Amino acid sequence: MSVLDRVVLLSGGVGGARFLDGLSKVLGPESLTAVVNTGDDFEHLGLYIAPDLDTCMYTLAGLADEARGWGLAGETFRAHERLAALGEDAFFMLGDLDLATHLARTEKLRRGLRLTEVTAELAAGCGVAHRLLPATEEARPTRITTLERGEEPFQDWLVRHRAQGTLRAVRYAGPDEPTPEVLDALERATLVLLAPSNPYVSIDPILTLRGVRERVAEKPCVGVSPIVSGRAVKGPLAEMIRALEGVEASAGTVATHYGALLDGFVVERGDEAPSCAHVLETSIVMKDRADRARLAHEVLAFAEARFG
Amino acid sequence: MSVLDRVVLLSGGVGGARFLDGLSKVLGPESLTAVVNTGDDFEHLGLYIAPDLDTCMYTLAGLADEARGWGLAGETFRAHERLAALGEDAFFMLGDLDLATHLARTEKLRRGLRLTEVTAELAAGCGVAHRLLPATEEARPTRITTLERGEEPFQDWLVRHRAQGTLRAVRYAGPDEPTPEVLDALERATLVLLAPSNPYVSIDPILTLRGVRERVAEKPCVGVSPIVSGRAVKGPLAEMIRALEGVEASAGTVATHYGALLDGFVVERGDEAPSCAHVLETSIVMKDRADRARLAHEVLAFAEARFG
Repeated sequence: MSVLDRVVLLSGGVGGARFLDGLSKVLGPESLTAVVNTGDDFEHLGLYIAPDLDTCMYTLAGLADEARGWGLAGETFRAHERLAALGEDAFFMLGDLDLATHLARTEKLRRGLRLTEVTAELAAGCGVAHRLLPATEEARPTRITTLERGEEPFQDWLVRHRAQGTLRAVRYAGPDEPTPEVLDALERATLVLLAPSNPYVSIDPILTLRGVRERVAEKPCVGVSPIVSGRAVKGPLAEMIRALEGVEASAGTVATHYGALLDGFVVERGDEAPSCAHVLETSIVMKDRADRARLAHEVLAFAEARFG
Repeated sequence: MSVLDRVVLLSGGVGGARFLDGLSKVLGPESLTAVVNTGDDFEHLGLYIAPDLDTCMYTLAGLADEARGWGLAGETFRAHERLAALGEDAFFMLGDLDLATHLARTEKLRRGLRLTEVTAELAAGCGVAHRLLPATEEARPTRITTLERGEEPFQDWLVRHRAQGTLRAVRYAGPDEPTPEVLDALERATLVLLAPSNPYVSIDPILTLRGVRERVAEKPCVGVSPIVSGRAVKGPLAEMIRALEGVEASAGTVATHYGALLDGFVVERGDEAPSCAHVLETSIVMKDRADRARLAHEVLAFAEARFG
């Protein structure tokens, strides 16, 4: 029995997906489950869109557009351009290949499958062997409040308004019910990892689900910092930390945010090491696929050395 | 006041759309309205698909793939291929550009617009000036019964099973309610034209709507034969005539089918001229765009000479 027997990763999109990809090269499908944020999920043109699940799925499948950071490699936007020409709201880019995922997911949900089952079918259809679990079955949409525009849906804030505006609050609407599969995976977990994702809009939407934080607290838990040298590897996290915590962004402020949940924390070499957890300093920026596997290896070795 | 002041065409897909395109070159938007069959409409992957409306719209817009006979010129099928790879039912070809139409139509319907309004917006978005009226607001699906497979939806029969099987019956399910716009257009019509479309699955689904046949009967009405030298220009019409009427297909059998409704009928030179109506013999096969305008011109001149 090893701490690596049943690893559960809590993850958002890009950064989490890349770390997940690395983990999947080290751990087999029986030893690794990803619980993926559904707070970004939204309905657009009647399609159920799950950006973080898709990013994790495409990345694991080797289909992701690594340069662009979202969507599928070799994507085209012919339907999207025509939708815009027809006057439809085109704030969210819908690739032609990506559309197939949205159409298939929405159709499967319409047929009565649960999002957990739909995700498993789509992942299998992409050749993904590792288990991707949506955090919730029902949408639990993240809402962002800015001084300038008031409360708005997450995608409106991030994509339509490019995270502009003075951030005031982040709220998770909808039922706080995790799936039975998520609770079961956490109960059986030998190690929980927090991906280098945005705490407020990727990890907290999972941790605040009923029963999740308590279960994570009972397990060895290691986080990877999404902040490197005071800056987010991707996205508006550094500005969010300043606005929501009133302090400058650092690996330490993220560790402090997670608090007693963390038994270990992985930061960039030279970054401030928070005193509240055992710290691994290494290179955490994943520039290529080799980096992902290397980081996964180091994090797992760190956990194994620490927790057995 | 001329018989050409307010022309209403009853039309199905390809053949009707080409004749409509010809008419649109002769008559301005104020003088020409097309009432388009909705019996082929169906829902697929949650999308409301209206094949005949789309064919008419794309043809009028100059966007149709003339060689293939359906869909848009320069179309690609990337979403479709990926949907098939994901295991979705791919019997109906969904082009990437075409998908935009289906998504936009479905979204507009979801917002509460009527199909008549949605069609007007989509047509305007394609630059179509002439009025396209769906025959109905609610789906009134055509059902086909074959000896081999029993009753099935029209698209299953035509596309999935390529019109194979021994035809037994054609039925129009759903409410027989035309739109107010259709009834109004027919009441104000100075001339009604029956396009060279399939009587059973394109024109009759319109004529059998409540109040339509009575209104058409009060107007000068000229039909164009969909049968040339005993064969359908496109589709399984000749076989349908044999199965449903028990006679060999000819222009005459189509004229007999429409009966007293017709005041004039347009047939291919040398084809049997039915005795029940005034007949114009000319070349009715529309091989190119010039043919369409020429035929439209001749049919309208025939009607004008006959009815003033």
